[in-house]
Amino acid sequence: MIVRDFNELKNTDRKVADAQWTSVRMLLADDKMGFSFHITTLEAGSEHTFHYKNHFESVYCISGKGTITDLASGETHEIRPGVMYALNLHDKHTLRAEEELVMACCFNPPVTGSEVHQEDGSYAKADA
Amino acid sequence: MIVRDFNELKNTDRKVADAQWTSVRMLLADDKMGFSFHITTLEAGSEHTFHYKNHFESVYCISGKGTITDLASGETHEIRPGVMYALNLHDKHTLRAEEELVMACCFNPPVTGSEVHQEDGSYAKADA
Repeated sequence: MIVRDFNELKNTDRKVADAQWTSVRMLLADDKMGFSFHITTLEAGSEHTFHYKNHFESVYCISGKGTITDLASGETHEIRPGVMYALNLHDKHTLRAEEELVMACCFNPPVTGSEVHQEDGSYAKADA
Repeated sequence: MIVRDFNELKNTDRKVADAQWTSVRMLLADDKMGFSFHITTLEAGSEHTFHYKNHFESVYCISGKGTITDLASGETHEIRPGVMYALNLHDKHTLRAEEELVMACCFNPPVTGSEVHQEDGSYAKADA
């Protein structure tokens, strides 16, 4: 059994940060769960365009307020506690945080921890 | 893109219940994400022994207070917001809710939605 505490990990190198977001990697590929699990915080007022071409991701809103726009359909959905979106079609999307958003994220395949966001908004394949 | 709201799903058949717990299935196997994602609520004062022999599960505490005991080692860990446990060894365990616990759970392989807890505390294999 693995037991980990967000409030401890956020002070370690399991916390990664980029422009106006941070992510604490609670589970990574080497935990061999077949998915990775992250707690991601997006700063109030920030906007992010992501496109995970190589991963499926689900994102559950724990706290905060914002919107997500599906860039293929143009549709915008409200994000509030209890709302989950799942990028089952590797959907390119823009996330806006009106208030700070805290999100529980699952990735399949699991993130290894060494990926960085590429210019196109994706994570590279683990073996790239 | 799939967008679902816990507060709507909890009034549908995506909410399942057993003795002193309920679980809202936000993502199931047929969503083809490679994992399932559930928001599970355990009643204050309840105790549960589970043994997912056929699944890996990670569980992140969103709110509440309790403990988890690893029945192989006898070790007990405190559960509070921000604590995650992952049953990477299909660990048999007892979960106690001192206060109502709300947990974000990921299963691999994904739960299909038709499983029930068996007498031994496991979910049957999807094809059993």
